[in-house]
Amino acid sequence: MKFVSIIMGSKSDYDIMQEAGKIFEKFGVQYELLVSSAHRSPERTHQYVKQAEEKGAKVFICAAGMAAHLAGVVSSLTTKPVVGVPMRGGAMDGMDALLSTVQMPSGMPVATVAIGGAINSAYLAMQILAIDDEELSAKLKEDKILKAKRVETDSMGIEVII
Amino acid sequence: MKFVSIIMGSKSDYDIMQEAGKIFEKFGVQYELLVSSAHRSPERTHQYVKQAEEKGAKVFICAAGMAAHLAGVVSSLTTKPVVGVPMRGGAMDGMDALLSTVQMPSGMPVATVAIGGAINSAYLAMQILAIDDEELSAKLKEDKILKAKRVETDSMGIEVII
Amino acid sequence: MKFVSIIMGSKSDYDIMQEAGKIFEKFGVQYELLVSSAHRSPERTHQYVKQAEEKGAKVFICAAGMAAHLAGVVSSLTTKPVVGVPMRGGAMDGMDALLSTVQMPSGMPVATVAIGGAINSAYLAMQILAIDDEELSAKLKEDKILKAKRVETDSMGIEVII
Amino acid sequence: MKFVSIIMGSKSDYDIMQEAGKIFEKFGVQYELLVSSAHRSPERTHQYVKQAEEKGAKVFICAAGMAAHLAGVVSSLTTKPVVGVPMRGGAMDGMDALLSTVQMPSGMPVATVAIGGAINSAYLAMQILAIDDEELSAKLKEDKILKAKRVETDSMGIEVII
Amino acid sequence: MKFVSIIMGSKSDYDIMQEAGKIFEKFGVQYELLVSSAHRSPERTHQYVKQAEEKGAKVFICAAGMAAHLAGVVSSLTTKPVVGVPMRGGAMDGMDALLSTVQMPSGMPVATVAIGGAINSAYLAMQILAIDDEELSAKLKEDKILKAKRVETDSMGIEVII
Amino acid sequence: MKFVSIIMGSKSDYDIMQEAGKIFEKFGVQYELLVSSAHRSPERTHQYVKQAEEKGAKVFICAAGMAAHLAGVVSSLTTKPVVGVPMRGGAMDGMDALLSTVQMPSGMPVATVAIGGAINSAYLAMQILAIDDEELSAKLKEDKILKAKRVETDSMGIEVII
Amino acid sequence: MKFVSIIMGSKSDYDIMQEAGKIFEKFGVQYELLVSSAHRSPERTHQYVKQAEEKGAKVFICAAGMAAHLAGVVSSLTTKPVVGVPMRGGAMDGMDALLSTVQMPSGMPVATVAIGGAINSAYLAMQILAIDDEELSAKLKEDKILKAKRVETDSMGIEVII
Amino acid sequence: MKFVSIIMGSKSDYDIMQEAGKIFEKFGVQYELLVSSAHRSPERTHQYVKQAEEKGAKVFICAAGMAAHLAGVVSSLTTKPVVGVPMRGGAMDGMDALLSTVQMPSGMPVATVAIGGAINSAYLAMQILAIDDEELSAKLKEDKILKAKRVETDSMGIEVII
Repeated sequence: MKFVSIIMGSKSDYDIMQEAGKIFEKFGVQYELLVSSAHRSPERTHQYVKQAEEKGAKVFICAAGMAAHLAGVVSSLTTKPVVGVPMRGGAMDGMDALLSTVQMPSGMPVATVAIGGAINSAYLAMQILAIDDEELSAKLKEDKILKAKRVETDSMGIEVII
Repeated sequence: MKFVSIIMGSKSDYDIMQEAGKIFEKFGVQYELLVSSAHRSPERTHQYVKQAEEKGAKVFICAAGMAAHLAGVVSSLTTKPVVGVPMRGGAMDGMDALLSTVQMPSGMPVATVAIGGAINSAYLAMQILAIDDEELSAKLKEDKILKAKRVETDSMGIEVII
Repeated sequence: MKFVSIIMGSKSDYDIMQEAGKIFEKFGVQYELLVSSAHRSPERTHQYVKQAEEKGAKVFICAAGMAAHLAGVVSSLTTKPVVGVPMRGGAMDGMDALLSTVQMPSGMPVATVAIGGAINSAYLAMQILAIDDEELSAKLKEDKILKAKRVETDSMGIEVII
Repeated sequence: MKFVSIIMGSKSDYDIMQEAGKIFEKFGVQYELLVSSAHRSPERTHQYVKQAEEKGAKVFICAAGMAAHLAGVVSSLTTKPVVGVPMRGGAMDGMDALLSTVQMPSGMPVATVAIGGAINSAYLAMQILAIDDEELSAKLKEDKILKAKRVETDSMGIEVII
Repeated sequence: MKFVSIIMGSKSDYDIMQEAGKIFEKFGVQYELLVSSAHRSPERTHQYVKQAEEKGAKVFICAAGMAAHLAGVVSSLTTKPVVGVPMRGGAMDGMDALLSTVQMPSGMPVATVAIGGAINSAYLAMQILAIDDEELSAKLKEDKILKAKRVETDSMGIEVII
Repeated sequence: MKFVSIIMGSKSDYDIMQEAGKIFEKFGVQYELLVSSAHRSPERTHQYVKQAEEKGAKVFICAAGMAAHLAGVVSSLTTKPVVGVPMRGGAMDGMDALLSTVQMPSGMPVATVAIGGAINSAYLAMQILAIDDEELSAKLKEDKILKAKRVETDSMGIEVII
Repeated sequence: MKFVSIIMGSKSDYDIMQEAGKIFEKFGVQYELLVSSAHRSPERTHQYVKQAEEKGAKVFICAAGMAAHLAGVVSSLTTKPVVGVPMRGGAMDGMDALLSTVQMPSGMPVATVAIGGAINSAYLAMQILAIDDEELSAKLKEDKILKAKRVETDSMGIEVII
Repeated sequence: MKFVSIIMGSKSDYDIMQEAGKIFEKFGVQYELLVSSAHRSPERTHQYVKQAEEKGAKVFICAAGMAAHLAGVVSSLTTKPVVGVPMRGGAMDGMDALLSTVQMPSGMPVATVAIGGAINSAYLAMQILAIDDEELSAKLKEDKILKAKRVETDSMGIEVII
C-alpha cells in the first residue's frame, strides 16, 4: 500500500483541507485524513505517524494555524517528506502560521505551501509520488496543459485585441 | 524539592539564558538547566519533562527561536506553568518566535515574555513561586524598591533642574 | 482568602474577558472582575491593586488594547504574577497591544498570552495557583485528558482511514 | 517661569535626547531634563509631573522605548501637551514604541514624533510655546528660511545643470 | 481672532473628522474646516495656509490617508503646530499613512495622533491653546475628572467584587 | 499603430483592470487587454509579448496578485516600459504582490503603481505616450486642472469658514 | 533639448543616486541632477520643476526617504512621467518610503522602483525615452543580451554539470 | 541517471547554496548546480529545465532573492517537485522572497523552505528521493538519530541538574 496522510490540527481545518482529498480522488491517489493535534493530543499524533509510516504513508500533509507546530512535530518523527499547510487565523492572519511551519532546524524540513494551500499541498504530494510513477506523472503533465488552455478560455470572453 | 527547570532548544541559547540562572542564584532559588530540542530530540524532551515534574519542578522556562515550538511542546506535557522565552533570529528576528510561542490553543497556555527576555523569565518564575513563599516574596519587594532608587541615581548625573 | 483579580481597561473588553470568569467558575476558583483604566483612571487602578493584594489577590489578569499599558502599570505596582491579555483593535489589530504588553523592563514581567486569550489567561492563573493546591492540580490534569479525548471525537465524524 | 520638561524612561535615552536640550539652548528656551520610569519608578514620575506643572512646565517631552508607556502615563496626569518620542529598540526596532506612544484613548492625546525624533520634539514644543510668544515665533520663521537656504548650498557641490 | 484650522485631503475624511469639529463646539473653541489636497490642489493648499495663518489660525489639523503628505506639506509652509491625523486605508490600512505623517525631517515636525484619531487631534489642539487660556485649561481639567468617573460607572454594571 | 497592452494574470483581475480600459477610451488611447498567466500559460505570455511589441505596443501594463511574477516576466522579454499593478489578496493582502512586482534586478525595471492601482497605471502609460504627443499632453494638463477644481467643489458642501 | 531630471530630497541620497547619472552617461542620455526638498525647500522645488519642464525635461526621477513626499509633490506639479526612488532609512528601513511614494491619488501616478533602485530608475527613464528613439532602443536591446550572457559567465566558474 | 538540480538566480547565492551540494556529497546523492536567472536569462532557464528533466533530474532546488520568481518559473515548466529557497535581501530581508516563492497558483506548487534554507532544501530533496530508495532512507534515519544524540552532547558541557 502507498498513500498520502493528511493530518489536521483542528476539526475547523476540514473545510479547507477536504479540497486536498478531492484532488487525490480525481487523480486516483489513495489517502488518509484525520484530526490530531500537536498540543492537545501529542500521544495520538506520535502513535499515528509511526503506524501510518509502517502501513505505507509516503508523504504527510499537515495543516495547522496559529502557533502551527503540527508539521514540525511530524517532521521530527519521520523521514518521509512532510508538506506543511499554514492556516489563516492568529495575530497575523496566517503569516505567523507560515513562519511557524517553514522555519525548521536543519535536517527536519517542512515543504511549506501557501496559507490555506490545500490544493497545492495535494499537487506537491502527487509530484513527489510521481517521481517513480509513470502513470501519475502523465496525468500531471496533462493537467498542466489543461490549465494553460483554461487561461485562453478565461481570456476569450473579455479580451480586447486590436 | 522545589525548583525551576530551564530548557533551551539549542546550545546557542545559553549565552542569553544563563542570565536567568544568575538571577536564581542571586535570590537563592534552585534550578535545573539543560538543552533539549522539540524537533531534534523529542523523546529526550518528553522524558525530561515527566521526570522533572516528579522530582519537584514547579515552573518550566523554555527558550527557543525560529519556529519556536519548545514551550508549546512542554505545555502540552505538563500542567505546571510554562514560561516561554522567544529568541532572536529567524525571518522576523524574533517576532516569529514570539508568535510561535504565545499563540497556544485553549488549555495549553504559555506565559510569554519579551524576545530574549531571560531575566524577566526568571522574575516571573520567582513571582509564581513567591505566592506561597513569604521569604521570596519579601526579597522581590525589596528588589522593586532598589530598582526605583536606581532610577534616581541614574538621573542624578545628567539631570537639568531649574 | 485567595483569588484571581481580572482588570479590564475598558468596558468593551467584557465580552471576551467574561470567558475567563466562566472558566474560574467551572473550576471553583474565586475571582474579582472590574473595569479600571491605566490612562483614564490611574488613581483608581493604583488603589485597587494595593487593596486587592492585601485582600488576597494571588494573580492579576489585565486586559487592554491599543497602547495596552494596563498590565505594565499593574506589574509596576505589585510583585504578584501579572497575566497580560492584549486585545484586538488598533493599527495592527492586536499585535501592537501584544508588544505593548510583553516588552517590559527587567524585573517587571508580564506573563503574556495570545491576543484575546481570555481562556488561556484563566488557565495560566490556575496553573500558578495549582502549584500549592493539589485539588486544583488534579482538576487541571483531568481537563488535559478530556481535551485529548475531544480531538479523537472531533476526528471521528470526518476521518478517512484506509 | 515657563519651561519645557524632558522626561526619559531610561538613562540610555540621554545620548539622543540631549539633542533636544541643545536645540532649546540655541533658541533660548528654558527646560528641565531628568530620568524617571513609568514602570520602575511610578511614584517619582507622578510626583515630578505634578510639581513641574505647578512650577511652570508648559509642555512635556517624554522619551521611551519598548512597551513605551511613559508619554501615556504623563498624559494621564496632566492636561498640558505631551510630546512623545518613541525610541529605537524592541522587537520591531521602535515601531512597537511608536504604536505604544501614539495609540492613546480619547481625551489623553500624545503628540507623537518619529522614532528617535529628539530634535523635532524640541521644534514641536517651541512651536507650541511660540503661539503666544512673538519673539520665539520670529526665530522659528528665520530658522525655516535658513533650512531652505541650506538645501541650495547642499546642492551646489554636486548638482549637474545643463 | 484665534482658531484651529482642520484641513482634510479628501471629502471622504469628513465622516471621521467632523468629530473633531463637534469637540471644538462642545468646548467653545473656534475652528475652520475644509477640503484641500496636497496633490490634487497644491496651489489651493498653499494659499489657504498662508491666509489662515494671517487670519488667526493657531494650530492646524491635517487629515490624510495613503501616501499621507498633507500634514507634511502644511508643516513646510508654517511655523504653527501641525497635528497630523493618519486615515485608514492603503496597503497597510493606515500604518502607511501614520509613517508618512510622523517621519518628518528636522525642523518640520508633525504632532501625530493615532490612525483615525480625530477626537484626540481636537484634544491636542485644545491643550496647545490652553497653555495661555485659563478658562479652556479649567474645562480640560474638569473633562479629565469626568472621564475617570465614567470608568467607575462603566465598571459598576459588570464588576464582580468578593 | 501605437497602443498600450494590458495583460492580467487572472480573469479575476478584470473587475479592477477594466477601469484602466475606460480611462484609455475617455482619452482616446488605443489598447489591448487579455488574460495570460506567468505560471499557468508561460508560452502564451512569451508569444503575446513578442507579437504585441512588433504590432506597436509602446507600454505594457501587467496586473497580478500573490507571487506576482507577470510584470517581471514581461519586463524580461521586452525593453518597452512595463507598468506593474499589484493586486489585493495573498498573505499580506497585496503588499506581497507589491514587493514581488517592484523588486526587480538591475536592467529589468517595473514601473510599479499602488495595489489595485488600475487607474494610475493608465495615467502613467498616457504620460509616457504623451512625451511625444502634444495632443495627449494637452488633455492630461486639462485633466489636472479639473481635478484641482473638483477639490473645491468637494469642499463647498461641507466646509466651515469663519 | 531633451533630458531626464534627477531630484534628490537630501544631499545624503547622492551616493546612491549618482549611479543613475553614470548609467545615463554610459548610454549617452542627457540629465540634470540636484538637491531640492519637498519640505525644507518647497518653493525651490516648485520653481525648478516648472523651469525644467519648459527647458526640455521629459522624465523626472525623484529620490527621497522617510515620509518620502518628493516624487508625489513633483507628480502634482507636472504631467511628465515621474519615477520615484524610495530610499533606505526610517522606521521600516525603506518600506515606509516605498509606500509613501507608490500610493498616490488617481491621476497623479508615481512610477515606483525598488528601495534604493537608482539603476533601475535610470533604465526605466531610458525605456520611456526610447519609445520614440530608435537608437536608444537598440542600445537597450543590446544591453539585455549582454546581461543574459553575463549570467552564463557567472555560472561557468562554479557550475557542476554531470 | 537520477539527480537533483540546483539552480541559483545569481552567483551571489553560491556561498549559501554550496551547503546543499556538500550535503548531497555526504549522502552520495548526485546533483547539478548552475546559475540561471528568471529575468536576466529566461531562455537559458527554459532550455536548461527541459534538458535536465530529460537527463534525469528528479527534483529541482531553486534559490532566489528579492522578487524571487525563479522557483515559480521552474514550477511552471516541469511537473517534478520544485523546492524553493528564498534568499536574504530586499525590502523585508527575505520575507518578500519567501512570499514570492510560496504563494503559487493552484497546480504549480513550490515546496518552500526557510529563508537561506540551503541545508533543508537538500534534506527535503533527499526525503523525496528516498521514497523509493531503501538505502538513502536508511541513511536519513541514521542521521536523525545522530542529531538527537548531538543534543545530549551539546547539553552536557553546560547543563545544571540537581
